[in-house]
Amino acid sequence: MEVAWWEAAEDGRPAAVGYIDQRRLPHDVVAARAETIDEVVATIAGLGVRGAPCIGVFGAYGIALANLLHPDSGDFARAATRIREARPTAVNLAWAVDRVLAAGRDASLREALAIHDEQRAVDRAMCAAGAELMPLEGAVLTHCNTGPLATAGTGTALGVIIAAHERGRKLHVYVDETRPLLQGARLTTFELARAGVPATLIADGAAAATMRAKHVRAVIVGADRIATNGDTANKIGTFGVAIAAAHLGIPFYVAAPRSTIDFALHDGDGIHIEERSAAEVRGFGPTSTAPHDVPVYNPAFDVTPGRLIAGIVTEYGIARPPYDESIPDLATRPAFGMLLGRS
Amino acid sequence: MEVAWWEAAEDGRPAAVGYIDQRRLPHDVVAARAETIDEVVATIAGLGVRGAPCIGVFGAYGIALANLLHPDSGDFARAATRIREARPTAVNLAWAVDRVLAAGRDASLREALAIHDEQRAVDRAMCAAGAELMPLEGAVLTHCNTGPLATAGTGTALGVIIAAHERGRKLHVYVDETRPLLQGARLTTFELARAGVPATLIADGAAAATMRAKHVRAVIVGADRIATNGDTANKIGTFGVAIAAAHLGIPFYVAAPRSTIDFALHDGDGIHIEERSAAEVRGFGPTSTAPHDVPVYNPAFDVTPGRLIAGIVTEYGIARPPYDESIPDLATRPAFGMLLGRS
Repeated sequence: MEVAWWEAAEDGRPAAVGYIDQRRLPHDVVAARAETIDEVVATIAGLGVRGAPCIGVFGAYGIALANLLHPDSGDFARAATRIREARPTAVNLAWAVDRVLAAGRDASLREALAIHDEQRAVDRAMCAAGAELMPLEGAVLTHCNTGPLATAGTGTALGVIIAAHERGRKLHVYVDETRPLLQGARLTTFELARAGVPATLIADGAAAATMRAKHVRAVIVGADRIATNGDTANKIGTFGVAIAAAHLGIPFYVAAPRSTIDFALHDGDGIHIEERSAAEVRGFGPTSTAPHDVPVYNPAFDVTPGRLIAGIVTEYGIARPPYDESIPDLATRPAFGMLLGRS
Repeated sequence: MEVAWWEAAEDGRPAAVGYIDQRRLPHDVVAARAETIDEVVATIAGLGVRGAPCIGVFGAYGIALANLLHPDSGDFARAATRIREARPTAVNLAWAVDRVLAAGRDASLREALAIHDEQRAVDRAMCAAGAELMPLEGAVLTHCNTGPLATAGTGTALGVIIAAHERGRKLHVYVDETRPLLQGARLTTFELARAGVPATLIADGAAAATMRAKHVRAVIVGADRIATNGDTANKIGTFGVAIAAAHLGIPFYVAAPRSTIDFALHDGDGIHIEERSAAEVRGFGPTSTAPHDVPVYNPAFDVTPGRLIAGIVTEYGIARPPYDESIPDLATRPAFGMLLGRS
């Protein structure tokens, strides 16, 4: 299943950016089309696509669409700016838009397709490297959603699990539901079912008890930002899972592309923690479950110290402690596009 | 605010067991009446009242009501059995019903009132002892609901927090929402607001990050069952909170009446873990958030090792490690009813 794709004009239908509408998962799998720049922007802003790499791929195709729709260079530039700013904090989106723009208008679709191809290649390399970390058989645990839906490739941490399954490892995955937005319950369970990987959903609070009772052999999660000492910002709840894994002697891994590493950041103390709306915690979808005026602390992510992390999987392989040595070394590797023969 | 109470017949209204309908909290505070044995049983079974001690008090009043409604001894015995079995796993319910029955029919209301009085006295003593463990000022964290709503007295762990507040300690309480049933979001925030204690709601996954970011000084929770080595069964999620507190050097306390201690149980390995329905984790109320057929692991509680617990508060004071010595000592103390000048 593709998550985002280019649809050329055909049979009287205009060109469009196709996508699986993630708002309707897991109950409805709907292939939707963004045919205008308004629709591209609304899809990004409204979380029809989410996951930083997936947003980048979608935005790149959006620029190719703008190229077709807006022959006038002023209109094109305005459309590109609107797409680039549809979610201001998504680093991949701005990066992908800028890269397509730099390639020139005539090359916009080709460059968008190249970005998507590279995303797939980076993911595949990461998943192949990480698969070796998974047990030959037994239980593993993950948090949030880090599969194909999040990257428009094969995914990061969840991609590692699926790759290990495809290589014959007999895994059973325990999936944290991941409050407040329930990406684990809504998306990760859906992706594991499609991939044919046995999986069981748990409440976030059940993670420590599940690790002990179900003999979890490894934990693997994605990352939003990684410092050079291994400190890792990821979805809220990750830090508690990492502490529990350490307490129980279970290896805890992170999988993320090199682009997630902030080589200018020595440790996690400098990572700004975004706080999201109280409404996300005061209720559950349309159901209000707390006093309407109760104060809420809703950090979107937390920082797991590098010392709790047994290995960090990237497209270049597995970085091991001491991260102060292994992570800066990654900065010296050639760009992945060059490895693919592009450059 | 009383949580359960006796209503004598008056102004043409029949006698009844009064209660705050906990299903309608936090949005509606409704004083309801159970006027028949059917209503008493349905209120217990349908979670109109919950929390083991609160169910015990409510059931005791139910027997007093049965005494009025059923002069025939066969009818009375059948009514008592129905109440006793309304929630088969609630130890306090069977204990309270049996105690009222043993007192004799003529004494049933008096005995129910005595049970309620003793519950209040036990809670008050526990809360006074535990209040000394709270910081003079600063943040504390709790999990699930352990306030007056759970005991029909002053509560256990949440009662300790409220008692410390009443004694002038300047606490700010972080409240885990406590999936899957959200007792923290629905009930604990409500009780803290009524008591005037500053409080902030968090997702369960945010507990570890909150302890670190908000400088939490102490964690206190209730208990469902305690072994003589201090191993404590409590609401799912407690174990992970205890591990995080240990990792961060924050003292973790348990508050529960002596009746919660199983003096025949040396450690937590022998505690049966009840598993509840998948539907609780697949969504909340009418909102479905996961594939309808996804397998779920939904343990109702977990076991926190005694070595992670800095102190266990009972109505007799604070038991400290080594629990193998301090807990068996509690078995030798006189019954609390005797201390109150009864029995």
